[in-house]
Amino acid sequence: MKSKIILALLAVTLVGTASAQVKPEDAIKWRQSGYGFMAWNMARIKASVEGTYNKDEVIKAANAIQMVATSGMGALYLPGTDKGTGWEKTRAKPEIWTEKEKIGKAAMNLTKEANEMVTVAAAGDAAATKVQLGKLGSTCKGCHDDFKSKL
Amino acid sequence: MKSKIILALLAVTLVGTASAQVKPEDAIKWRQSGYGFMAWNMARIKASVEGTYNKDEVIKAANAIQMVATSGMGALYLPGTDKGTGWEKTRAKPEIWTEKEKIGKAAMNLTKEANEMVTVAAAGDAAATKVQLGKLGSTCKGCHDDFKSKL
Repeated sequence: MKSKIILALLAVTLVGTASAQVKPEDAIKWRQSGYGFMAWNMARIKASVEGTYNKDEVIKAANAIQMVATSGMGALYLPGTDKGTGWEKTRAKPEIWTEKEKIGKAAMNLTKEANEMVTVAAAGDAAATKVQLGKLGSTCKGCHDDFKSKL
Repeated sequence: MKSKIILALLAVTLVGTASAQVKPEDAIKWRQSGYGFMAWNMARIKASVEGTYNKDEVIKAANAIQMVATSGMGALYLPGTDKGTGWEKTRAKPEIWTEKEKIGKAAMNLTKEANEMVTVAAAGDAAATKVQLGKLGSTCKGCHDDFKSKL
């Protein structure tokens, strides 16, 4: 497990180096966009489990969340982007750049639950989707609690 | 071809109705997020064709663009969201809600070139990727010219 985390962090570091020419304000805007796009897709699943269940809609949303979660957004946390403005002022806490093992685990949790959401969505059961949405949402919240400043 | 466009527009309309409880400011923010996330992934491909080609990076970015393009963002163009503010004031032109056949074609062009980018990315040829990035980018630009206000 530990070696996997180290490998994941190494991958993030290498991609980060390759993207060194990215402007800080773009990196911040792009990562805010990724989370904003995930928020829409979480809301689509929520609407389906609270209202009329739409299997195709849930599948599309689950695939979208998985794709964002595995897109390599770690590369957008360039050195120096703990401050700055994209769509809005970044709320990234400095701990993102210091607590690497903890954030590596948070990223892996998100990926695990996003992958599971894709599996659950394909089965098309509303109750199971609701349970999995809760698990997935708790990985978002956990990371926000630790690494995102309150407004 | 025409019947396909009508079917696509019908699907957008139906999903739009199902999402009627979405707040306009959320719909605007979420669609801006989708485009912002695509912009990152276009930039990743651009960096690869202009610098050192990274096949894995291009594949990830192409998959991300395809996913956003096919995620059903048409549902976020709710009636009344030609005005309003998400991350920023919307730049959606009113023609989005009136020129339905034209925008249906624009959406299909984007999907076609995004799908082709996934195929090209898998082959891993830098020159072919550059050509396809140009084709894909021209579908973005075409839609912006017709349906997005200048700053």
